[in-house]
Amino acid sequence: MNDLTQTPEMIIGAMGARARLATTILAAAPSAQKAEALLAAARALRGATAKIILANRLDMERGTANGLTAAMLDRLRLDEARIAGIADAVEQVATLADPVGQIIDESVRPNSLKLQRVRVPLGVIGIIYESRPNVTADAAALGLRSGNAVILRGGSEAVESNRAIHSAMVAGIVEAGLPADAVQLVPSTDRALVGAMLRAVGLIDIIVPRGGKSLVARVQEEARVPVLAHLDGICHTYVDAKADPQMARQIVLNAKMRRTGICGAMETLLIDKDFPQAELLVTSLLDARCDVRGDDAVRAMDDRVEPAQAADWDTEYLDSIVAARIVDGVDEALAHIATHSSHHTDAIVTEDAATAEHFLQACDSAIVMWNASSQFADGGEFGLGAEIGISTGRMHARGPVALEGLTTYKWVVRGTGQVRP
Amino acid sequence: MNDLTQTPEMIIGAMGARARLATTILAAAPSAQKAEALLAAARALRGATAKIILANRLDMERGTANGLTAAMLDRLRLDEARIAGIADAVEQVATLADPVGQIIDESVRPNSLKLQRVRVPLGVIGIIYESRPNVTADAAALGLRSGNAVILRGGSEAVESNRAIHSAMVAGIVEAGLPADAVQLVPSTDRALVGAMLRAVGLIDIIVPRGGKSLVARVQEEARVPVLAHLDGICHTYVDAKADPQMARQIVLNAKMRRTGICGAMETLLIDKDFPQAELLVTSLLDARCDVRGDDAVRAMDDRVEPAQAADWDTEYLDSIVAARIVDGVDEALAHIATHSSHHTDAIVTEDAATAEHFLQACDSAIVMWNASSQFADGGEFGLGAEIGISTGRMHARGPVALEGLTTYKWVVRGTGQVRP
Repeated sequence: MNDLTQTPEMIIGAMGARARLATTILAAAPSAQKAEALLAAARALRGATAKIILANRLDMERGTANGLTAAMLDRLRLDEARIAGIADAVEQVATLADPVGQIIDESVRPNSLKLQRVRVPLGVIGIIYESRPNVTADAAALGLRSGNAVILRGGSEAVESNRAIHSAMVAGIVEAGLPADAVQLVPSTDRALVGAMLRAVGLIDIIVPRGGKSLVARVQEEARVPVLAHLDGICHTYVDAKADPQMARQIVLNAKMRRTGICGAMETLLIDKDFPQAELLVTSLLDARCDVRGDDAVRAMDDRVEPAQAADWDTEYLDSIVAARIVDGVDEALAHIATHSSHHTDAIVTEDAATAEHFLQACDSAIVMWNASSQFADGGEFGLGAEIGISTGRMHARGPVALEGLTTYKWVVRGTGQVRP
Repeated sequence: MNDLTQTPEMIIGAMGARARLATTILAAAPSAQKAEALLAAARALRGATAKIILANRLDMERGTANGLTAAMLDRLRLDEARIAGIADAVEQVATLADPVGQIIDESVRPNSLKLQRVRVPLGVIGIIYESRPNVTADAAALGLRSGNAVILRGGSEAVESNRAIHSAMVAGIVEAGLPADAVQLVPSTDRALVGAMLRAVGLIDIIVPRGGKSLVARVQEEARVPVLAHLDGICHTYVDAKADPQMARQIVLNAKMRRTGICGAMETLLIDKDFPQAELLVTSLLDARCDVRGDDAVRAMDDRVEPAQAADWDTEYLDSIVAARIVDGVDEALAHIATHSSHHTDAIVTEDAATAEHFLQACDSAIVMWNASSQFADGGEFGLGAEIGISTGRMHARGPVALEGLTTYKWVVRGTGQVRP
């Protein structure tokens, strides 16, 4: 076949068909074989370090010429340490418990039919991601461990790096006797191929976008294939009247300032009007070089506070900026969160257990926290070993998604000749 | 507000906002209160029997005038016995275990953070259905039991019946102290309102279409809201060489002929070339007045067998017709099923446990069966107590969907002041 004459639908269609064939082998592959494939892939990655660095240098040079920002170039850059880290992460996924084959529940019906719900792979997963080339290995590893075939479409900035990493991953997979088509890389960064992936109903079972808001928004808007994604992380911390002041200060500073660019970072601080040390919270943030945009009550606490505009309550800053507001009790905090939260992670700080439990019940977010920093919102911190993303949708998986979120189940019914009356 | 000046988006937007408000009460409602609301709704339905029959008579008259088929009129018809059956079903849902609040799993992290995954309602469920008015009560009951608000859009043929049933349901819900907005009926059968529901991202969390293929296909094509649906039930039964002939005959006749119009009915019969009584299977079906469309080998067994065309292997007849083919062993059967099945329910009949287990593992369908009739594919038969539908998708819920499938979960994290290093 001549690539020049192929439509995007033909290219993705052929990849999808090969991926589907691979799933029949992957779904039946013993857990040990899938783990061995990942260990072999990690060895291949380490062995290909020089090649991957060379490929990455091409991407870096093109990126520099194209005027990528320093931050984008840093995300793109690979060196020995980062490649070792990527291989370590692949090995780590090999140690995770395999969800495939797990019996979710079982029963025996009055007519003696035996029922089980058994975990099986989702099938074919499409991953659409941006500049970080480590996703090529991470997503492939998580997909493979859970018995799925993966179709990867990385960013155009990282095309050479992604190809080099993909080659190493495939070498390991094949060494362990699993099909090379288990992990496929879309052959070009033509954007029409993304469109074809998003419309590949029946070929791709689920799309996972990993990247900035505009990517995720495009995927959610265009996709006909189901999407597992999160769009925003507008996370709130509510400091109750009965919060321990010292704990509140530590949690608020950590939730905002530990890393401002992650989706679990606090973006809005809600303080009860009866919390005695509200001013200390606000000045601590300002002293830590965080811009505070407050309502009138917060502005009255410190001259450095700027006035919050209406849009601030709906903004994911991903920066050293926080919106802050005084509220009248937990229910006003909950009402604010219901209106403005992206339902990713919202937290309460209080010593009052009844107020905390009310908040944990009534706050309708993927993750709700009591007396902890929202920066813990992470698959690794939750003990999942890794994560393919954090879902703010309500279907399928919610919050940090790792191996279990990449599976579905089937109903297995064993009879002895039963017919339905 | 004047309905005549409202766009479909405004009407659905207002309903969605009221539904969302209702979810905050429903999500926190004790299990006993939700059960009491359903028992009160059942009493209200029984009390409104005369009113519902009057309303139904209007629908029947209009349907007759509009030339509905006898089958459609039968689906539409309500009498005392059918209304009692609807009330019984609502009472039955009240007895089902409430999934909300169930702890799926929990762990304590090395830093002493306590994690739980807790089941919560999905939120707002949109149900789009056709002529059977009992869905108004069934869907409302399942939604309410699982703490969801429901927006119902029934078929235009049943508009008066649906309104009468909806009024009775709401009366019961309000009597138990739950909000009337828990169950809303779309005020007109204007098709533009269906479109507005399908695009109501953020207002409606999930759409469940219940009806014929064209309805489900339209919903799957147009929806921006996630859809829980099944499109086809092209179910296979494979009779292995080592099947018990008597059992095979009973299962095949039951799977095809018990009720031909349900989605779990067998549409294709695959017989191993070494099964000694293939001819008996085929003649038994023919003698039971089932049309058989066969490949050459099947045609050679009986003059009454018609030739199968290519399209037959991909057809859901929902009628007394079966496509039949001789295959060379379980793997050829699996290959046929992989190509032609709608992945709803597929079954093997064999006395060979190893062959059976191979089939159960390798067949990638929502329900896989060994030595049982595919007509058991049903939430009631599976012990779920009821079903909102059978999902052939791979995301979220698969196979029969009842209360658990109408929930999601949230991560509840309880700390003692932990901050992330």
